[in-house]
Amino acid sequence: MLDELKQKVYEANMMLPKNGLVVFTWGNVSGIDREKGLMVIKPSGVEYNELKPEDMVVVDVKTGEKVEGKYKPSSDTDTHLVLYRNFPHIGGIVHTHSKWAVSFAQAGVGVKPMGTTHGDYFYGEIPCTRKMSEEEIAGQYELETGNVIVETFKDKEPDDVPAVLVHSHGPFTWGTDPFNAVHNAVVLEEICFMNFHAYMLNPEKGNMQQELLDKHYLRKHGKNAYYGQ
Amino acid sequence: MLDELKQKVYEANMMLPKNGLVVFTWGNVSGIDREKGLMVIKPSGVEYNELKPEDMVVVDVKTGEKVEGKYKPSSDTDTHLVLYRNFPHIGGIVHTHSKWAVSFAQAGVGVKPMGTTHGDYFYGEIPCTRKMSEEEIAGQYELETGNVIVETFKDKEPDDVPAVLVHSHGPFTWGTDPFNAVHNAVVLEEICFMNFHAYMLNPEKGNMQQELLDKHYLRKHGKNAYYGQ
Amino acid sequence: MLDELKQKVYEANMMLPKNGLVVFTWGNVSGIDREKGLMVIKPSGVEYNELKPEDMVVVDVKTGEKVEGKYKPSSDTDTHLVLYRNFPHIGGIVHTHSKWAVSFAQAGVGVKPMGTTHGDYFYGEIPCTRKMSEEEIAGQYELETGNVIVETFKDKEPDDVPAVLVHSHGPFTWGTDPFNAVHNAVVLEEICFMNFHAYMLNPEKGNMQQELLDKHYLRKHGKNAYYGQ
Amino acid sequence: MLDELKQKVYEANMMLPKNGLVVFTWGNVSGIDREKGLMVIKPSGVEYNELKPEDMVVVDVKTGEKVEGKYKPSSDTDTHLVLYRNFPHIGGIVHTHSKWAVSFAQAGVGVKPMGTTHGDYFYGEIPCTRKMSEEEIAGQYELETGNVIVETFKDKEPDDVPAVLVHSHGPFTWGTDPFNAVHNAVVLEEICFMNFHAYMLNPEKGNMQQELLDKHYLRKHGKNAYYGQ
Repeated sequence: MLDELKQKVYEANMMLPKNGLVVFTWGNVSGIDREKGLMVIKPSGVEYNELKPEDMVVVDVKTGEKVEGKYKPSSDTDTHLVLYRNFPHIGGIVHTHSKWAVSFAQAGVGVKPMGTTHGDYFYGEIPCTRKMSEEEIAGQYELETGNVIVETFKDKEPDDVPAVLVHSHGPFTWGTDPFNAVHNAVVLEEICFMNFHAYMLNPEKGNMQQELLDKHYLRKHGKNAYYGQ
Repeated sequence: MLDELKQKVYEANMMLPKNGLVVFTWGNVSGIDREKGLMVIKPSGVEYNELKPEDMVVVDVKTGEKVEGKYKPSSDTDTHLVLYRNFPHIGGIVHTHSKWAVSFAQAGVGVKPMGTTHGDYFYGEIPCTRKMSEEEIAGQYELETGNVIVETFKDKEPDDVPAVLVHSHGPFTWGTDPFNAVHNAVVLEEICFMNFHAYMLNPEKGNMQQELLDKHYLRKHGKNAYYGQ
Repeated sequence: MLDELKQKVYEANMMLPKNGLVVFTWGNVSGIDREKGLMVIKPSGVEYNELKPEDMVVVDVKTGEKVEGKYKPSSDTDTHLVLYRNFPHIGGIVHTHSKWAVSFAQAGVGVKPMGTTHGDYFYGEIPCTRKMSEEEIAGQYELETGNVIVETFKDKEPDDVPAVLVHSHGPFTWGTDPFNAVHNAVVLEEICFMNFHAYMLNPEKGNMQQELLDKHYLRKHGKNAYYGQ
Repeated sequence: MLDELKQKVYEANMMLPKNGLVVFTWGNVSGIDREKGLMVIKPSGVEYNELKPEDMVVVDVKTGEKVEGKYKPSSDTDTHLVLYRNFPHIGGIVHTHSKWAVSFAQAGVGVKPMGTTHGDYFYGEIPCTRKMSEEEIAGQYELETGNVIVETFKDKEPDDVPAVLVHSHGPFTWGTDPFNAVHNAVVLEEICFMNFHAYMLNPEKGNMQQELLDKHYLRKHGKNAYYGQ
């Protein structure tokens, strides 16, 4: 069942330790089959070096029920589901505790567009969510984590800014498929590194020019893009 | 004698250089056999690439006497012994001079809970001990190092916060066995990295919400835990 | 056509990921054949691990037209061309988004000569360009990027300071050939690391002594050089 | 001639890139045969991956003349010679442009003893020299570099603090033989990392307690040492 998607989600998960984004089991990637309404996700707490494609867990996107798999799905499953339900174009999601992005999340600050590396991938600030309320934390915590992300994007297009920092927690990134979501997770980490040091060198600096952000984002995305082959 | 524990302690020691936690011979791991009242520990000043399982030294936990081994035990042996005597549930101890944790120890500041990575492993601040007194330093220094750690935990549960920073020195971590203690040493290093940068970005930030710390610690530990398989 | 130069440019491009200067496809190296008036450059958006010497694209330096190659040349082609036209002695150019140099570019500050590592390679501050105007960004952006670099060097000798930071963007370096340009890109990254931390330790420090800069630059460059064999 | 010492000096030089202390050709190690009054040192500007034991150059310590070798000795030869002449117990010297130590040198600040990692190797602050004068720089620069180091140690015992930072330049370390000098270069780099971050976390912190420094230095050095086998 969904063997091709399982293989993709497995491979995308294995890219996390390879790219230095996870330590131990801290991270997970999922992918979605929109037609069938099914999500494939990493099992909870399994070591990367023991992971196999057939270990991936299949979950019904509408009901949240496990449809197939010998393991329990990632404890972050409900967050992934909320994002797939609310962001209709995304095909893959990544959650990690990557160091540089977590540093911003713990500081409670978003990642401002300060340079063209940012503009090549993210069309504006990568926001940090508000703190979650006591009720949200005590209730269906993982689902509420998804809700607070969706709330953060109420005036933003998730396809144009495919990343968020959950306050005091860490990053979620998404993309057109699981590989693209991992790609964005790697880029986010690079940008956080660059922004941290730029901010230390010049705390007054602020955002890049809007016109430069437009230029770089739009030369790689949208109908007038001319980057690549 | 204790061949299985020696093998474990040996393997746990070898994980220190592999995880980038030690340079040269700066670190040691021990394990305990509670029934027999014996500790197994790395020998003093032996290079990791020359270390063999049979080089591990066996020490009587009550008397501190060497029971077996061709080498002298680690110079930090007395510190390990004090911890085993006072923290009755721990099964393994790690001491390193890992860079990020030492940076906090040298600054004389504890590691505040600023995010969920911390909360997944440590239920509250990882404390930094007070400075040791002239008498303690001039006396049985390594044993007094253990005593000042125990004093630091007089109102804290060592099983819930399995790490400490010794002031102007470095970290000790512990766990249910030698591997778990190394695991905690790796996590501590990650957290120190994240907290350092979060603090630089937002020095006013302070601790995460207590309810979020509760949520994350308790979903992985204790009787209502639901993380993993 | 130009097989030897293509091989060199290919090898120089492959040195970028090997030296940790690029992530994904973020970077490009070119080389010039001055006699023939032809530039060889990396194709746009091709992954490094799929790149082959024969993929390099040949461009006419005067007209900017592609002369040979199955791929489109790098999107930064026009910037390279402007530099070759205006800096008559350079034989190779590198553009990357290397982390430390980008941090300075995003901060909008040049790299001051603070030590002899700088002085061994760069005879004075590595400048950061002014911000580009709305017109320049909306117009022939990549060509204007070249123009703003040339403007930055109107009172500087590009052979003596073979690097620049484009504001809110990243570094360009050049050299006597493609390998030398990569060499300078690696050195720039090291210097940015050193200057960042020196500045954090002592924000008042400022430039090194002019006489020390003279000594180090001139013992390696020019007619009285005595470093090396 | 001096084949054994050449082999040692060669191996010690090769440890520099292996330990991440040098980029390109930026560094050199020497060793001395005190009985014969001869120094063996790396040739100037030769790449590490092309270096062979027989390439090492032999220099007369008293006269500074080359005694044997097809290459010119390191451009820093005169600095090494001054140190051997004035520090009578040292057997090896290392010069690098390692990043963390250079950061302190460029900031013009010494490395304060802030923790036991420092105290295990260096008995007090690792000093930064004064700036060199215009005359010293314009004159026999490399020899004067040695002189300013010796001046910095006029009230310090070089055997107890086997490292120095040359202002706006970088570190020199020494030791009982070439390997020990490299060992100290690695430790210096670690300590600079730790001190940088401790200082950022707590700029008011200052030195560790003198009694703790005494304890750690003296348990590893001198006649009452008890660390190791």
